[in-house]
Amino acid sequence: MAMQAAASMFPQLAPRRGSDRAVVLAPPPPPARVAMRRRSSGGVAAAARGVRCRASLIEPDGGRLVELVVPEEGGRREAARREAAALAHRVRLGRVETEWLHVLSEGWASPLRGFMREAEFLQALHFNAIRGGDGAMVNMSVPIVLPLGDAQRRAIQASGARRVALVDATDRPLAVLSDIEIYRHNKEERIARTWGTTAPGLPYVDEAITNAGDWLIGGDLEVIEPIKYNDGLDQYRLSPAQLREEFARRNADAVFAFQLRNPVHNGHALLMTDTRKRLLEMGYKNPVLLLHPLGGFTKADDVPLSWRMKQHEKVLEEGVLNPESTVVAIFPSPMHYAGPTEVQWHAKARINAGANFYIVGRDPAGMGHPTEKRDLYDADHGKKVLSMAPGLEKLNILPFKVAAYDTKQKKMDFFDPSRKDDFLFISGTKMRTLAKNRQNPPDGFMCPGGWKVLVEYYDSLTPSADSSKLREAVAA
Amino acid sequence: MAMQAAASMFPQLAPRRGSDRAVVLAPPPPPARVAMRRRSSGGVAAAARGVRCRASLIEPDGGRLVELVVPEEGGRREAARREAAALAHRVRLGRVETEWLHVLSEGWASPLRGFMREAEFLQALHFNAIRGGDGAMVNMSVPIVLPLGDAQRRAIQASGARRVALVDATDRPLAVLSDIEIYRHNKEERIARTWGTTAPGLPYVDEAITNAGDWLIGGDLEVIEPIKYNDGLDQYRLSPAQLREEFARRNADAVFAFQLRNPVHNGHALLMTDTRKRLLEMGYKNPVLLLHPLGGFTKADDVPLSWRMKQHEKVLEEGVLNPESTVVAIFPSPMHYAGPTEVQWHAKARINAGANFYIVGRDPAGMGHPTEKRDLYDADHGKKVLSMAPGLEKLNILPFKVAAYDTKQKKMDFFDPSRKDDFLFISGTKMRTLAKNRQNPPDGFMCPGGWKVLVEYYDSLTPSADSSKLREAVAA
Repeated sequence: MAMQAAASMFPQLAPRRGSDRAVVLAPPPPPARVAMRRRSSGGVAAAARGVRCRASLIEPDGGRLVELVVPEEGGRREAARREAAALAHRVRLGRVETEWLHVLSEGWASPLRGFMREAEFLQALHFNAIRGGDGAMVNMSVPIVLPLGDAQRRAIQASGARRVALVDATDRPLAVLSDIEIYRHNKEERIARTWGTTAPGLPYVDEAITNAGDWLIGGDLEVIEPIKYNDGLDQYRLSPAQLREEFARRNADAVFAFQLRNPVHNGHALLMTDTRKRLLEMGYKNPVLLLHPLGGFTKADDVPLSWRMKQHEKVLEEGVLNPESTVVAIFPSPMHYAGPTEVQWHAKARINAGANFYIVGRDPAGMGHPTEKRDLYDADHGKKVLSMAPGLEKLNILPFKVAAYDTKQKKMDFFDPSRKDDFLFISGTKMRTLAKNRQNPPDGFMCPGGWKVLVEYYDSLTPSADSSKLREAVAA
Repeated sequence: MAMQAAASMFPQLAPRRGSDRAVVLAPPPPPARVAMRRRSSGGVAAAARGVRCRASLIEPDGGRLVELVVPEEGGRREAARREAAALAHRVRLGRVETEWLHVLSEGWASPLRGFMREAEFLQALHFNAIRGGDGAMVNMSVPIVLPLGDAQRRAIQASGARRVALVDATDRPLAVLSDIEIYRHNKEERIARTWGTTAPGLPYVDEAITNAGDWLIGGDLEVIEPIKYNDGLDQYRLSPAQLREEFARRNADAVFAFQLRNPVHNGHALLMTDTRKRLLEMGYKNPVLLLHPLGGFTKADDVPLSWRMKQHEKVLEEGVLNPESTVVAIFPSPMHYAGPTEVQWHAKARINAGANFYIVGRDPAGMGHPTEKRDLYDADHGKKVLSMAPGLEKLNILPFKVAAYDTKQKKMDFFDPSRKDDFLFISGTKMRTLAKNRQNPPDGFMCPGGWKVLVEYYDSLTPSADSSKLREAVAA
């Protein structure tokens, strides 16, 4: 891959200047306009909550970033590996569970220190938030849990074990789970409360719940070494700590995160550029964009991560986004497609990576209803729920303006309702269909190099394509 | 009914002593042991939160008890009635909606001031809590909403009306709903997030959701006059304000609430008596029990309210509970049978009525799964969820000890696992089956007069009984 042109956006390839890593940033003037995002909707609805200004990056949930990878010093990893290999019980992780192990190990879910015990699971399901040790609520909307089959549950409980090894498909130890708690995996209730439906055909449910065990095992994690996938993309998998370091190195005084699982078109780019402009107008001196494609499990008809990264690279090479103010990295979480519930997770995880502004669009983390001809979620619920969510008060939510293709100007622009017939809405489905059929989108919809990647991807899928081609790399 | 013997428990029949209504109560010594109820369960689970001592009754949610009935003074009710009669749009309330109107009108759902608008609905569904005007979270776990059909929705929206009349089955105006907001009633999502299942056969869903409109209308309420049912039981329907007055009159320095929808047996009575003993040991001087049967919609095989009230009366007449320290009143809410979600509503509403202690048992608000051979909820989830619920921090949760029939002592007693074979568990279903078959339960299970009422109730149901016999009185 020709990555040079994009080097300054891809921080892991940029030259490091060690001397300015510890710079303490001056606080920007109060960005008063942002406070307006909290709509007053009468009754006892969400009240305006002030914007918090900080002299440095936003604080992680719980006050301290959790990092669960055993330090290298003093042969501690080797010791952990030996201990894990000697433990009587080994729980084998599937693809999605390994992605969650990755997520937990780097503190995206801070202050969680491992797979959820029942108290955390119940709070996530019922309140989308968990009370931390200090009594404060932190947001936590999706259960991060580890299923366990009944035979293994009985064996572990009969032995009285308090620690188990977590291993990969080849029985290689990945982590030790300690002070364990085993409790029932009520799948129906979990699905209903997370997705707001129990209709068959939810991608995450099919992938990671339906055939999973009827028990869940929670506990504290010690992860033996950083999770790697060896798919040529590991250098983009920056941990929250690494991202925070990069933002500090760049003297960022505001970080705005953009979660995506689709190719970037010029409407997205317009939005990100416009957001930076707005932040500068608010008085921030150096707002930095975290362009943060999701890297974990996605449904079969989404474009795979490796192709999306190639597409993002072209978009950056062709100058659609400003390299100086953009950091591209992979967010290791699997995708739930749980709409308003999941968008909270997407936002919360980015707080832990240092983002204090979060861009939210129409129908975030949404999809079609699996059995009915409609979207599963109301397109506005995501941003409404996000703006009211407990534990996200410190995050500034930036709702999307709607961008569409302006047939008069021949470019993507913010939709102008006064001349609505001039605009063309090109959905993700429409975009994918065009690329599949090797048709071109209208000029100015996406940079040519980026579009070419998309067409190549669909070309690479023959009608008889083995379904494994649609799969992402699995952590090795 | 021969109510005299129970007069002092039924406050509305007791002689009033106006002089002591305004007594300010001295704070009891700190009840340190109660703080232990918050289990430490590791990780980021619920932390111990201190017990709040108050010099008077516990504060209502939002700081002030909401009362939405138009005051009688100055002909205001007549004016409201005239206005309502003249409004262009009338939304007709069914039985359950009228019960919610009753609930809202008296402030059980404080700080809610009317049927939920979308922001409140979404917060209830996703967070089981709503952010009040002061930014603090108050608990609100079940949606209190008013469905609207599509034709009426279009008519209201076309007219631009901001106020509509709410009327009963005979078109009599009950209330005015103002500053209205109309939004979609996504039934599947509402059901999944409230019950944790979408299985057919949920009693509340069948009664109030399945055939309801596809829209919801929220707004602020002015209720024209107090809701009455004219079923001979209205004198037990004390509002939160009336209950607070009664507790003050009795110089209560602790109020412990017991929610029930079943006949009282001696196990319940033991529990309530024991709770009072524990509160006295903690240093409270005058703990008062609020025995608070639910009076709204219940499923067809529950014992109807009128028979339950007769049964409670007998239990009190026969001295099973102490009249001096018991207030019996009806809680006007309909029943959801939504387990851990609903128990929060049951507890929250009692805060508004002045209760600072809440007794919670096994599987509160639970029922059998409608389509599978198991309980719908884990029997322990109710008390766990309740103890962690946002907005209920100020309420002291008292988990049930399990009472069962001790065949050696021939009485209900707390279950002793060291001689477990001596105990007999008699479920609600078992109790109902015995009464239906005119069989007697073991001596000491229930006072004889109370049992007789139950048998009479089942006798009154002939095999060909019209199903309307199973229905409760509807607000007139």
